[in-house]
Amino acid sequence: MSYVAPVKDMLFNMQHLANIDQIAQLPGFEDAGFDTAQAVLEEAAKFTQEVLAPLNWEGDKAPSSWADGKVTATAGFKEAFAQFVQGGWQGLQHPTDFGGQGLPKTIGSACGEMQNSANMSFALCPLLSDGAIEALLTAGSDELKATYLENLVSGKWTGTMNLTEPQAGSDLAMVRSRAEPQPDGTYKVFGTKIFITWGEHDMAENIVHLVLARVSGAPEGVKGISLFVVPKFMVNKDGSLGARNDVHCVSIEHKMGIKASPTAVLQYGDHGGAVGYLVGQENRGLEYMFIMMNAARYGVGVQGIAIAERAYQKAVQFSKDRVQSRPVDGSIAASAPIIHHPDVRRMLMTMRAYTEGCRALSSVGASAYDNAHHHPDAEVRKTHQAFYEFMVPLIKGYSTEMSLEVTSLAVQVHGGMGFIEETGVAQYYRDAKILTIYEGTTAIQANDLVGRKTARDGGQTAKAIVSQIEATEAALLQSASSHAVAVAKRLKAAREALVDVIEFVAGNTKASPNAVFSGSVPYLMLAGNVMAGWQLARALLVAQEQLAAGVDNAFMQAKITTARFYADHILVKAPGLRDSIVEGADCVTELALDAF
Amino acid sequence: MSYVAPVKDMLFNMQHLANIDQIAQLPGFEDAGFDTAQAVLEEAAKFTQEVLAPLNWEGDKAPSSWADGKVTATAGFKEAFAQFVQGGWQGLQHPTDFGGQGLPKTIGSACGEMQNSANMSFALCPLLSDGAIEALLTAGSDELKATYLENLVSGKWTGTMNLTEPQAGSDLAMVRSRAEPQPDGTYKVFGTKIFITWGEHDMAENIVHLVLARVSGAPEGVKGISLFVVPKFMVNKDGSLGARNDVHCVSIEHKMGIKASPTAVLQYGDHGGAVGYLVGQENRGLEYMFIMMNAARYGVGVQGIAIAERAYQKAVQFSKDRVQSRPVDGSIAASAPIIHHPDVRRMLMTMRAYTEGCRALSSVGASAYDNAHHHPDAEVRKTHQAFYEFMVPLIKGYSTEMSLEVTSLAVQVHGGMGFIEETGVAQYYRDAKILTIYEGTTAIQANDLVGRKTARDGGQTAKAIVSQIEATEAALLQSASSHAVAVAKRLKAAREALVDVIEFVAGNTKASPNAVFSGSVPYLMLAGNVMAGWQLARALLVAQEQLAAGVDNAFMQAKITTARFYADHILVKAPGLRDSIVEGADCVTELALDAF
Repeated sequence: MSYVAPVKDMLFNMQHLANIDQIAQLPGFEDAGFDTAQAVLEEAAKFTQEVLAPLNWEGDKAPSSWADGKVTATAGFKEAFAQFVQGGWQGLQHPTDFGGQGLPKTIGSACGEMQNSANMSFALCPLLSDGAIEALLTAGSDELKATYLENLVSGKWTGTMNLTEPQAGSDLAMVRSRAEPQPDGTYKVFGTKIFITWGEHDMAENIVHLVLARVSGAPEGVKGISLFVVPKFMVNKDGSLGARNDVHCVSIEHKMGIKASPTAVLQYGDHGGAVGYLVGQENRGLEYMFIMMNAARYGVGVQGIAIAERAYQKAVQFSKDRVQSRPVDGSIAASAPIIHHPDVRRMLMTMRAYTEGCRALSSVGASAYDNAHHHPDAEVRKTHQAFYEFMVPLIKGYSTEMSLEVTSLAVQVHGGMGFIEETGVAQYYRDAKILTIYEGTTAIQANDLVGRKTARDGGQTAKAIVSQIEATEAALLQSASSHAVAVAKRLKAAREALVDVIEFVAGNTKASPNAVFSGSVPYLMLAGNVMAGWQLARALLVAQEQLAAGVDNAFMQAKITTARFYADHILVKAPGLRDSIVEGADCVTELALDAF
Repeated sequence: MSYVAPVKDMLFNMQHLANIDQIAQLPGFEDAGFDTAQAVLEEAAKFTQEVLAPLNWEGDKAPSSWADGKVTATAGFKEAFAQFVQGGWQGLQHPTDFGGQGLPKTIGSACGEMQNSANMSFALCPLLSDGAIEALLTAGSDELKATYLENLVSGKWTGTMNLTEPQAGSDLAMVRSRAEPQPDGTYKVFGTKIFITWGEHDMAENIVHLVLARVSGAPEGVKGISLFVVPKFMVNKDGSLGARNDVHCVSIEHKMGIKASPTAVLQYGDHGGAVGYLVGQENRGLEYMFIMMNAARYGVGVQGIAIAERAYQKAVQFSKDRVQSRPVDGSIAASAPIIHHPDVRRMLMTMRAYTEGCRALSSVGASAYDNAHHHPDAEVRKTHQAFYEFMVPLIKGYSTEMSLEVTSLAVQVHGGMGFIEETGVAQYYRDAKILTIYEGTTAIQANDLVGRKTARDGGQTAKAIVSQIEATEAALLQSASSHAVAVAKRLKAAREALVDVIEFVAGNTKASPNAVFSGSVPYLMLAGNVMAGWQLARALLVAQEQLAAGVDNAFMQAKITTARFYADHILVKAPGLRDSIVEGADCVTELALDAF
């Protein structure tokens, strides 16, 4: 098997760090306790391992292809998608009102990780549908909901997000696509959208594009952008499909990775105008788009964890099979599998620690989301919402940045074989590089972290979250095991470094924006590092308890070692990052432009 | 122009850090002063920019191809290679006795950087020829020298290194290729060699393979390996080419990068045995191969610098052209080129600082090599040799590891466009990944650093080199500029961290090999970081003097800022690395094998 879903680790996180049993007490989640989680995850594991994983390399070898405006997915993808729909996987987290299963994000995001580990190109399609569903649920009229949601939730139709234009990448103020109001209340949409993931394909009957455009006469900048539904095929009153709409795929990109996922250039309105339906109110498009983006940003963070896990598994397998050289400690008197070499261990432990740390963080983040949306107490919802919003840029930014390092290490473990495409690990290295870019680059996540999540309230939310770490430090010191004490030391140093930086950011964003934004990405990396390290520290405490109770010794021992490794090899970077941010800002922007 | 050679920076390094004028006083290098360096570099810049650079992307789009045992290089490569030969570039550093120009490595390595920036796939071919030339010069008989060297030095023929076999990658003890002595003093060579760079091609009339094999009855392990010359075409007494030898290219690899460089599987002896000529003595092959390897390792380090420079230039260009969003400091009231955004600056400065730091280190290393080989005083030669040997694993390991980060940042600066192959920057990301693998992975370099370069003499050489940094710190403090003082602070902390690690390595390699080798790569990264940072600190001092003298203000200002950036954003990582190595060793190898 090329991928084995880490069900045990996911359940450990849900049970001990994300409190799945507490979530099961929230209204609407009554059936979503540990047993449900276990059953769903085991089913998801089976499907992703057996159906999706074997197609991953196929998609790299024979990418989705374009001809005469039509995109044909890699052979096997259409059938796999039919199985995906059949299994009800698209609707896992969506409301039962529209045919979904209404499960918490805490469970759904683990299934998302599996899909992405198994086949990231494939999993992008449902990830984008999720965004479209969220936007319609939040801002769509009853008519739009009635027309589109059921088929999106079932997976019969898929969804897309259309933001980018050639001149407008991260800068949505520059969006030029336009929408002309029609007497019947619809709009005619015109423009070119690029980088549209699964913007055209043959896996579903219809594609529901969510498109940013300007209504004629709208204000300039981001305050004049509206959001429209533009279906590929018009939908008749009875729900059957009607005429082809005036949106056409004029080409797909030739990319470094995620090749099976077609990245479309979509042309709207070349034949009279694409029929579009306004979502919510005019000029509030950006706000609605952020609903999709925030869901997608969390989802992309999970993609980082997912590809890191897959790369880790492949590296482990290779390092157990490949025989080269004698161990340095003389423990084996002949050439041995390379996993016996300390540096191979160091690489594997680095991969493992990053992946487990970010997985734990994503699980805790999902749990906060579920509480923020379902807790009966408004104050509690608010606290969880603030926590979740602080975590989203970290989960997106840090988990994807770490996935670059992890996939690079996976190639490295393979030595020369890693560079040969047929080995398969190079694909992960190429695929992963999109993750730090799409749905907002790491710098865009860092802007969000600095601006909305830190400076806006003077760092209060950030500091309140960080102060919770002190309790974990105290518990570690109290437990007094050597690993716990060592982790406490690193965690304390890291937390203090983070507090310094939060104060620096909160105190200087207005007066010295260049200085603060010079360190925005390092701040994101520091905060992500501390948050993931904190979750592993919590995991260590749980594992010590479980070990004392004699539960699953091997797993718990490994968790403790992994947490210790994270602390000494990853969390340990925190003070250096603090120094770079707080003391090293000026030289970042000092060089004269023409000296570059 | 897609590449502009950094001639000014190279000449700055040669003049002020590598003491080219001192090298010009060494016997044999009388004409190799600053003026010669400048003239040669300007000529090299012209050739690489105009001839090699435009072919780089062509080679990625249309890799060298195999058919019926023959490899055809990417269109244009053969003609470019003819121009390379015509220009005498292959012989730049080789002895005038064999038609070379006899220039110092200090000059040659800068030209090598340019070739590799312009076209890494192309430049690999002469890099391997250099290795073959070195091996023959050192260990070849007069007859072998007479037969092969002149044509290798001119570039009429090219050379290869044949080490790897399917079961023997880093572990040469497992080499199985065999050589049977013949009555006429030649050998018949049999076996399969893989990963042979430019092992077959149509750019030169003949290919001179240097092949590791075991003479029948030789001892097992690395002590039974001999080195052979196996020409593709036999060479007649009069120097003309004779029959085709029994070495055949049965396939080439499908790789993630450096696609224009054919990576051959060579089959020796399937039709009766390939005629081989022993180099030096039987069973001393590994020793001779190390001559080639050491030259090649330095050369691969330069490749890391080269591809980092090319990626940096592309990112700078894009960031000046691409317009997105307003600057955070309000300095421009409209969307601006992204180079105005602090995080883009941070990425560009990171790329620049790494590249300039490693370039300075490579220049200083080359200068030590020249002194080690040409200085009239044996004691001085010995000191320089020790310095050079300590630097080789750092130049190879650190410069290539940093090139992964730099090429990744280059893609990142491009945003979504970076992931589209036609943009061209993805190629650098893919190409660079081989550099930390071939000619010995980073772990192999680190083993060399730990074993031969540190533990063997109890850390004496290492500490002697490191102690020289104190003088630089003192000079920085004396100069009292704010940048100098800030750099001194980081340099001191980094040096102290490195000394701690050297002592840890020297003191524990024998007793606790697992603990030491768990930190071997972090030690390499720390040492490389400190050495490159040291050179930039020296550069800062020079730049301050030059600035005071009114020389080239803009360049000197930029050098000072770059050195400061390196200190605060890269050198600052040193104490964390120390902690990981010295305090974090145990958990690296603690996890049970079956827990992976």
